[in-house]
Order: sequence, then structure tokens, then C-alpha cells
Amino acid sequence: MDKIPVGILGATGTVGQRFIQLLADHPWFETVALAASDRSTGRRYAEACHWLLPTPMPEAVCDLVVQPIEPTLECRLVFSALPADIAGPAEESFAQAGYAVCSNASSHRMDADVPLIIPEVNADHTALIDVQRRQRGWDGLIVTSANCSTTELALALKPLHTSFGLRKLLVVTMQAVSGAGYPGVPSLDIVDNVIPYVGGEEEKIERESRKLLGTFEHDQVGMAPIVVSAQCNRVSVRDGHTECVSIEMEQSTTVDDVIAALEAFRPSAEVAQLPSTPARPIIVRRETDRPQPIRDRDAGKGMAVSVGRVRPCPLFDVKFVVLGHNTVRGAAGGSIHNAELLVSQQWIA
Amino acid sequence: MDKIPVGILGATGTVGQRFIQLLADHPWFETVALAASDRSTGRRYAEACHWLLPTPMPEAVCDLVVQPIEPTLECRLVFSALPADIAGPAEESFAQAGYAVCSNASSHRMDADVPLIIPEVNADHTALIDVQRRQRGWDGLIVTSANCSTTELALALKPLHTSFGLRKLLVVTMQAVSGAGYPGVPSLDIVDNVIPYVGGEEEKIERESRKLLGTFEHDQVGMAPIVVSAQCNRVSVRDGHTECVSIEMEQSTTVDDVIAALEAFRPSAEVAQLPSTPARPIIVRRETDRPQPIRDRDAGKGMAVSVGRVRPCPLFDVKFVVLGHNTVRGAAGGSIHNAELLVSQQWIA
Amino acid sequence: MDKIPVGILGATGTVGQRFIQLLADHPWFETVALAASDRSTGRRYAEACHWLLPTPMPEAVCDLVVQPIEPTLECRLVFSALPADIAGPAEESFAQAGYAVCSNASSHRMDADVPLIIPEVNADHTALIDVQRRQRGWDGLIVTSANCSTTELALALKPLHTSFGLRKLLVVTMQAVSGAGYPGVPSLDIVDNVIPYVGGEEEKIERESRKLLGTFEHDQVGMAPIVVSAQCNRVSVRDGHTECVSIEMEQSTTVDDVIAALEAFRPSAEVAQLPSTPARPIIVRRETDRPQPIRDRDAGKGMAVSVGRVRPCPLFDVKFVVLGHNTVRGAAGGSIHNAELLVSQQWIA
Amino acid sequence: MDKIPVGILGATGTVGQRFIQLLADHPWFETVALAASDRSTGRRYAEACHWLLPTPMPEAVCDLVVQPIEPTLECRLVFSALPADIAGPAEESFAQAGYAVCSNASSHRMDADVPLIIPEVNADHTALIDVQRRQRGWDGLIVTSANCSTTELALALKPLHTSFGLRKLLVVTMQAVSGAGYPGVPSLDIVDNVIPYVGGEEEKIERESRKLLGTFEHDQVGMAPIVVSAQCNRVSVRDGHTECVSIEMEQSTTVDDVIAALEAFRPSAEVAQLPSTPARPIIVRRETDRPQPIRDRDAGKGMAVSVGRVRPCPLFDVKFVVLGHNTVRGAAGGSIHNAELLVSQQWIA
Repeated sequence: MDKIPVGILGATGTVGQRFIQLLADHPWFETVALAASDRSTGRRYAEACHWLLPTPMPEAVCDLVVQPIEPTLECRLVFSALPADIAGPAEESFAQAGYAVCSNASSHRMDADVPLIIPEVNADHTALIDVQRRQRGWDGLIVTSANCSTTELALALKPLHTSFGLRKLLVVTMQAVSGAGYPGVPSLDIVDNVIPYVGGEEEKIERESRKLLGTFEHDQVGMAPIVVSAQCNRVSVRDGHTECVSIEMEQSTTVDDVIAALEAFRPSAEVAQLPSTPARPIIVRRETDRPQPIRDRDAGKGMAVSVGRVRPCPLFDVKFVVLGHNTVRGAAGGSIHNAELLVSQQWIA
Repeated sequence: MDKIPVGILGATGTVGQRFIQLLADHPWFETVALAASDRSTGRRYAEACHWLLPTPMPEAVCDLVVQPIEPTLECRLVFSALPADIAGPAEESFAQAGYAVCSNASSHRMDADVPLIIPEVNADHTALIDVQRRQRGWDGLIVTSANCSTTELALALKPLHTSFGLRKLLVVTMQAVSGAGYPGVPSLDIVDNVIPYVGGEEEKIERESRKLLGTFEHDQVGMAPIVVSAQCNRVSVRDGHTECVSIEMEQSTTVDDVIAALEAFRPSAEVAQLPSTPARPIIVRRETDRPQPIRDRDAGKGMAVSVGRVRPCPLFDVKFVVLGHNTVRGAAGGSIHNAELLVSQQWIA
Repeated sequence: MDKIPVGILGATGTVGQRFIQLLADHPWFETVALAASDRSTGRRYAEACHWLLPTPMPEAVCDLVVQPIEPTLECRLVFSALPADIAGPAEESFAQAGYAVCSNASSHRMDADVPLIIPEVNADHTALIDVQRRQRGWDGLIVTSANCSTTELALALKPLHTSFGLRKLLVVTMQAVSGAGYPGVPSLDIVDNVIPYVGGEEEKIERESRKLLGTFEHDQVGMAPIVVSAQCNRVSVRDGHTECVSIEMEQSTTVDDVIAALEAFRPSAEVAQLPSTPARPIIVRRETDRPQPIRDRDAGKGMAVSVGRVRPCPLFDVKFVVLGHNTVRGAAGGSIHNAELLVSQQWIA
Repeated sequence: MDKIPVGILGATGTVGQRFIQLLADHPWFETVALAASDRSTGRRYAEACHWLLPTPMPEAVCDLVVQPIEPTLECRLVFSALPADIAGPAEESFAQAGYAVCSNASSHRMDADVPLIIPEVNADHTALIDVQRRQRGWDGLIVTSANCSTTELALALKPLHTSFGLRKLLVVTMQAVSGAGYPGVPSLDIVDNVIPYVGGEEEKIERESRKLLGTFEHDQVGMAPIVVSAQCNRVSVRDGHTECVSIEMEQSTTVDDVIAALEAFRPSAEVAQLPSTPARPIIVRRETDRPQPIRDRDAGKGMAVSVGRVRPCPLFDVKFVVLGHNTVRGAAGGSIHNAELLVSQQWIA
């Protein structure tokens, strides 16, 4: 088939760059339009962008001229890596004008009529798009991907929630500096240091995980009845969030039950055929000291999450460690994955 | 008064070096004897030791000849920084021979007749020494300091346990590489990485915290009735363990109650006059992003612990972050502090 | 004697904070006035400043109200930690108004009538102050301290230049992130990375080292006839610049000659009695792998430089490694040291 | 064609692992035999090896049983990643027994009759194999690849030496921790630190670069008449050595000449068709702050070196920065590249 032309909003930032990198050889999508703030518009992308990724800037985008963030781009699908303070109204104006917006921004994630999607977790929540269009009178649509820490966590929890019913969840994160963008975390704050605080992150985990694991019924998503407590830290790691998790379930559950459920987890047939879906979205590590950022973040090309150290928790049922790539699965890769789902479900003409 | 001559067992390792550094200008103690493994005996300390601390090796120890680990040292008090595999019998032989042994090793910490002490937490547990001497027929004694992660945690929890009765404790640590000694953690395991595992550490925290907060009655220490769950990680920090803590208490307790109890905490009169006791053993930080290793580990010359981000926990009562210096308060400094207590209580003639 | 009241220009930045820290217990000076940019003026220092140093903010300055950068401060001596873009005219206006300005900014360092001083290196260059006052008609004065990399380098080279006559100098630096201020170097640029570039630094080293080692004659400072080539890099270190140096001298010189000259170096009697002068400004290390930032930057309370690995250079005469604390000796500490010299030489009434 | 079966000596170490990884999908070679020290022999590779690379251990080697380091492996070509203390005689015994040995060890690099090869630099030096066989009476052969720092340096210098005649070379390295193997550099030596010393490295650079750039004539390799001075440092980087270089040439040479020569450099037709040869072995960066380890080490799949900041040197002719991947181009990848050359030149039947 012909590739679907796509645009990127906020193309010059770190997440925008990751979109461009991940879309460079995408089998379904082709990047044809880049939009960014006034500072960059009118310049060639190669000049407007301080490229930060280890792989070189894809040839195909170097000569694209950066356009303003206005719904006049030559495509029907846009990815949004806009900063939270402008994403809200900008994304709405695109959806109103008929664009499908796959957003990584937080602005609309908790809107009652906006799907917050991880394809392996809650592909059925896209049904909310009909509600959204009806209520807002849009030809287009907005679908969001979750916060980075929440994404890897919810993916690992999905088979456990399905099988055993999660009740309580306590998570402590050790997050990579790439999550803060660029320039982001000053080196004087992270060399030989830990920052026990990531602004807004704990609230996002506590909220978004319950929506992701919730149920679509009667035109709305009911929040999963889980009590969630999160503590977030920044550590001296470039990419890959490590999370220590303790959970209690409705059904009495052993370590072996949990491992079995994690290992048995496979994407649905619909999701399995999306280009970005890894063969095994959850990888269980048996070593005593895994997962680790340097050794596990690139599993499944950055789209698989790794779970290790599954063991009994004296307070709850089990505890374990989960790790995922925060700027691939947890950001740009997640939104691209969502767009693939929308194409597959024929929300995008 | 004349200073008390002391010896150091395991003087060439990282904790041994920290003992030497902290004792260099100690008002009560004077280092007169250094003992280490065969490899080092018979050599000048300056030659036998690969000194790792930023401050220079104290002049007074450079020319001391390293002696074998045998109870023939010219002193009555020894500090043990011996590795776990040889500490057990070696410390016993010293106690048998009449030495007071203040140990940082784990071998005897959980022995029913061996006090595990943090002066501000459970100075009364030294009463166990009488039991120990009676049962073992020793003239000497063994007193132990706790594992590094446990020490700072138990100190922060003490006023909360006293005031509100701890019931449940969940802790996730982010520990400094100095805790693993030298050569310790390979740099390929920690640059741009987190290791979600510290051998034996979780069990130590779960056990030792309950003994430290336990009650001395009828010639024994009853373990505090707290359910403890620990997850331990190694991060790219030189010194200072950061711990994320969630607690539930018998009495319903608010954030303000907790802060008030932490801020009101003062050492007893007996403990306050020990040279190593900081004016405020617990420092409460009000900033959103503290405590941090680089900015808080040296508080109270490394003997104070810092607590910050006290806030409600959706699952338990409150959650917070605690930080302390793992090789000062959490190792050598803690054992010296214990020796000061023994002198003050006249256990050391 | 009564302490001399001093002010700090640019008090809220990282160098300004270091001034405040180093002046907290200074025997001659007392900080009475703090000035900073408009954003901070009118606020208590404790509120205006995001304090970054590991030791707490000194009590004495917490309640000082930040004033505008105008020559109306209640003191006669000011330290300038102003950014390069505003330091030039601001410092001049203070000198004109009768203040003695000890500046760490680069603006006036190379002015023909402004002394660039390291007390142990060229205390006699203060004679330029008479020229400056005559030419500019000032009651006050400006004296500057050198760039951080240059300071430690020039100090180490001084005895070699005096004894053997330097001709050629090639230096490659590995500089700490604190040199770039705060927020300064983004962590994504330095975790698992080296940046082989520090803006303007190579030119400063090549220029300033020749002025520092130059000769005051006939009312001017003649540049030392040394050919200098510098390459500058930023590495993942908090404090302490490490520099690899190769030198050729007029006289044929051996490694032993160089070591002997470095070890014999002592400050003049006049300089030795200044409070900030270390007993031995140059420390020679004999180990194969020193000096190192973590182990040597605090030598002499951060005011001594360490030299090690002195060995023959196949191309020039000798090569070696020099290390100093870039924000103490190389910045605030250096300017305070200069002010002490001015007091001692009675330039400050 | 059928793939050539190969063995790896020292298969469990970090360089051995890199050989396995790079050979996993090699178009010409297939790993069939793994040999290592007694500790590992007789065990499945998956059990004997503590795998350290971010990509998973290739399936094909997991079940290979580790064999002793003796010339009884079922192949004709072996790669040696043996430690220096045993490589010498072990490699000789394989060559004697008819094996082609492509070694990354230092033992035989400077032997007069052993080629030290970088295909793009001195492919003609393989002619030394005839001399070697004649003198030693071997059916097999030994060919070596250079030390990691030297390899990237010599490759970058090759076109400059060819065009302008190098005379003087001063290099300061900032080397990654992976160069020291595992466990290698202790984290206490590198977090917030620089080690200005890498054992034996400076001598290797000074020697090997002259052999690599030397001329094969009359059955021997004449050392290039270059005076070389090296200073080596270890920094907190995982992979990728950064080197600051100053050079003087016989012919007066400008920055533009140097850039033009570097950019014009292409491998010979013979070398260009080897699978590991990158299209452009030398990449010139024009940005002010490149090359950097994180952004340039993977150029050309780790086989290209990047050169940047080419500028005039006040002392010599030009100075610049060169960066390469020390465990790919500088170790296992270099030896594989050499083996490809041997196959292409029909030294391997």
C-alpha cells in the first residue's frame, strides 16, 4: 500500500526527534510535515533542530521546512510532542479540522472522552472516539499515550489485573534523565546524586494507570478499582525507567502464578500484526539482578518491558522490578503504536 | 582524661579506613593498633593500605605496623570492620580474651544475646551485655551496629514508632557504591545504569529494623511487631543511601503529626553528650526535592539523617524520603558512636 | 582588627554562592551586601537564591536583602561574580565610585592597565593599579583573577618558568561541570559522554597564562614569550579540573629538576601570611595514578594544586598532570586571595 | 559460499563476548568453537559466561561447550581475545598447528615478523606472513590488531601521513571504562572522577602507531619516522575513546588541507569489499562540539572513526579530536576485519 503521510507537532524537541527517528523506516507511515514553535518556523529542519540522538538525522527530513503549529499541514495524521502548556488547544484545533491526533502530551489524557491507549492493554478503549466525535462535533480525533513511567507499569500489570484482579499497587521509580527533555536535568543535579522528585509524575502514575486498566462500558471508561501509591526519583541514567513494584490482588496469588501469567501474555491477534508490537511485550528475567537499564532497555527494539526479581512481598502478595525504554515505548514509540492501531481499526481513512 | 587506646580489625578495607579517618581527632579514643589479613601483616600501614578517602591518611597511623587478627593487641577496645566470612569467630575470640568489640560486621547482629545498637534509638539494649557475659563466660563483650540502610531508616522511624506505633513499613532503597567496598561495584555495572539488587540487603533491613525498634524485657530483646518489606537498588552515587518509605501506624496519623514528631526528636541527655551525637539526629527538609545525596549526606558531619517529602500515602498513612551517609552514620561512625555509649555507661573500664 | 565589610556582585549564581561560603568564617572580611540582577532585588537572599552547595547557606546572609548592581553598597570592597555580558561596565562604575573590585569575570582580565593576579605567581603586578588609577582617574580599582583552568596551570608552571624559562606549552583539559554554572551542562550531554569543547576556554588559557607569567616593567606587563596551545574538554566530574601538560624550556631540564623545583616552591613571606594561602601551594604526588579530582581537589582546602606523573616527554622536555579545584582556587577563592593581597599591600584603606 | 568455521580463544571475557556478538550474523564466518580458561571448560557457554553486552547472547553459541585453549578446535581460523599473560605461547601453538590466528592481544604486536594490521591503513603489511612462516616454520600464521587507542588514531592519521608526512604527534586520550574489561575499573575510581593513568597504554600508542604507519620493504616493516608523545586518561564513559591530537607535518599544511585529505580518504578497492569496512572509514564533523562518545561511537556500526574540531595549533600545524568505538573498531571488530582481509588475500585456504 502507499504510505500514509504524517506530520509531527513539536518536531524539534527530544520527543519530536524520537518520532522522526522511529518513523524513518516505518512500513506504514511517511513523515511529510514538521511543525514547531515560532523560533523554528521557516527554517530547514536540519538547521532548526539541535539533534540529540546517537543515530544521524534521517536524510528525508533534513530539508523539510519547519511549519507553524496550525492545522494546514499536508497530511491527515499528526503526532503531537507538544509541551503541556500549549498541547491542549493546539491538538483540539487539529482534531476539529479533521486530523487524527496521536498525542504524547498529557493535556487530554484524562478527558472523559479521550482514549488513553496502550494497544496490548486496552485496544478496545478506542471506542471512545465515537463518543468524542459525537460530543465535540469533530471529524478528526485525539488519542493519547500515557506518561512514560505509567506505560511500562500498566503493560506489566495488564496480565496480572486480568488474571487476579489488582487491588493495591505501590511503586517507586528510578527515572532516566531523558524523560526531562533537553536541556532538562542540569548535570550538577545528577552526577553523584539522586533527585527524589519528578514534578507531577506521581499524580500521573496514580491516575493514568487506573484509566489504562479500566473498563469501557456504556460510552465511558470506568477507572480500575486499584489504590495506587507512587514515589518518583531521578537517577543518573540516560534512558530506561526502573520501577520497584509491590502489589496485592483480589485472589490469593503466588510468585509462580505471577510469573506464569507474565510469561503467558501475548498481544491479541489484532495487535500482534501492528508493526511496532514486539513478539513478547513482557519479558521475564530470571537472573537475580535484572532488569537493568543498560542491558534491558532496548529489548524488543525498545517496545518490550522487562520484569524481574518476582518474589513474595511480606506486606502485599508479590513484589518485582519492571523496566522499559521511556522515550521509545514510553513516549514516541507508544504514540506511533497507537496510530498503527487506529489504522488497523480503520479510524483513519 | 587520657585517651582510650583502640585497635581496628580489618584496618585496610574501606570501612577500616573510615574508622581511621573518623578516629583521627577523636576526643576520647586514640588508634594504637591496626590488624588485617595475612597479606598485610608486618608491613607499615602506609604501605599495606590502598587509601581511598579524599582526606589524606592521618600521620599517626602511617607508621603503625599491621598486626595479625589475634587478641594480642595493646588495647581493650577494638572496632571490627572484618568481612562477614571471618568476623564471627574472630570477634568471639577477642571478646573471650576480654576485649570490648564494637563491630560493624553482620555476623553477630541477630544473636539473641548481642546488642544491636543505635544510641539515639535503643541505648537501653546494652543491658543485654550482662546476659551475654553470663551466657558466654566472657570478660569482654560484643556490641554491633546495624546494616547501613537499616541504620538511617531505624533512626528516622524511632520517634514515629514511639509516638504512633509502627505497623507496616515498605522501603525501596537507592544505595551508594561505597557500600560495596573496594573494588566493589564494577563501573560497567553502574555508569548509565541501576542494579536492582544488593545481595542480602533486603533480609537485613527486614530483620534488623525490628530488633533495633524492639523492646528489652526479661533479659531479651523482643522484635518490634512491624511487617517490613524492602527492595534494594544500587545507583551511581558515591556516598549516601536514599530511601523511599511508606508506613502505616497503629494510631491514625497525619503528615503534620509525623513532621512534628520528627522535628521534636532529640537524643536523651545521656546520648546527647557523646562526641559523635549530632545536635539534631533527624533533620526535616521542607523543599520539594530534598533530601539528596550530594546536598544532605554530610549533614551533622555525616551523623544526621535527613527526611523530606513527607506526604500522605494513598495506601498507608504517610510516605517520605530518608537519606543518610552510609559509611559514616551507617558504618564506622555508628560503631564509634556505640563505643562512646559503652564508655559513657561504664561498660569499658 | 575590625573585619572589613564586603559586598558580592552576582551573589545568587554558583560563583556568588561560593564567595558567600568561603567568606562565611573569613578572618578579615565580613559579607554585608549582596547584589544581583533585577529578578532577585528586594527579596531576602534565602528566598532569592537556589542554593546549590553541599554545606548549608550561612545564617548571616539569609536575611540580607538583595540589592541592585549599583555602586551604593555599604562597603568599600566588592567581589564580582557577574556574568561576562554585564561585568565590564558594572565593575567600572564601582571602581569609578571608589570601590575596590576583585573580579572573577573575564571582561577586564586582558586590559593593559588591569592586574591579573595569582598571589603566589605575580603579586608584584598590583603595581599596575597606580597606572590604572592615573589613566582612568579612579579612586577605586579593579583587580582580576584568571580563568579557572589557567589559574591552576599558571600556579604549577610558576616555579618552572622562574627556574628554567618556559618556551612551549601544550595543555589538554578535562574540566568539571561546575565550571559551567547552573543549570549549565545538561545531563544528557555528560552522562556516559565527553564534550570536546568549552566555549572561549582555549583562547583564555592561551592569553591569560602569558600575562600571569609575564613581567611588570615600565608601567606595563609584558607577556611571557611562551607559545601556548590548549584543547579543552568537559567530563563527568562535579569539581576539579584535570590537565595534561607538556612543556619545553629554554634550559635543558630533567624530570628530577622539575620535581625538585615544584617541591621547593614556597610563597613569598608577604603572600605566606595571607589567610587563604596554603602552606604548600603545589603538592607533588608520586603515585602512578594521581592527581585525581575526587582525591586531590580539596587539598589545601581547595587552594593547593596537585601535580603528578612528572615524566619525560618524547616531543618536549617533560609532561605531567595538574589538578586544582575550579570553583575554589579557580574562581571565588582566587578573588578572595587577591583581596587579601590588596589589604596586605595597603591598596585598600 | 559456505561460511568459514571459526573459533574464539578467551571467549568468556568482554572482548570474547564482543567477538561473538559481531560474528553472530557475519556473512563469511560462523562461530563453531569457543575456548577459555580451565574455570569454564566443559560447561555450556550460556552457563560459563557472565554476558555483559546489551544485546542478548546469540542463540547459536548458547549450547556450545567451552573447550580448553589447545589447538584441537574444529576450525582453521581462530580469534584471540586472550589476556596478555597467556596469549603469547598459546597463539604460537595454534599457528604452529596450522591455524590462522587473528589476535587482539598485545603479545606479538611488535614482533618483527608479525603483521600489525588495520586494513584501510596497511593492508600490504600482510606480506610479512611469508617471512613469518619461513622463519618460524609454521603452516599457520599470526596477524594482530592494534591497541584500541592506537587503532582509531592511526586510521585518522593515515591520509595525513600519506599526503603530508607526519613528523610529530602529541595525543591525550580520554578512554572508556570498557577498555579495562570486567570487573575492570571500580566504580569508586570513576564516578565523579578521572584517572590520569592507563597502565601500559602510552607506550603502546607510541610504539604501535609507528609500526602501523610504517613501510613494508625488504621483508620487514620500517617504523614511521614520527616522534610520538601520549598521555592517557580514564573517564566516566562506557564505550568510545576520545583523543585530542596535535600534529606537525613535513610539508606546511593548513586546516583546509587536513580536512580535504580526511574527507577524500576512501579504502582501496580490495579493502572496500570486506564486509566490515565502512563506506567512509573517517567521518569529519563540522560542529563545534563533536565528536562525542554518545553521539559518534556507533558511526559506521562502530567501525568508522569521527574527527572534529580541526583547527590550527599554535605549536604544531593542526590540532583536532578523534573518536572511535574502542571495543568494536578498537578490539574485536578490528580483528574480524583483519580476518576478512586474510580471506580476501587468500592467506586462509
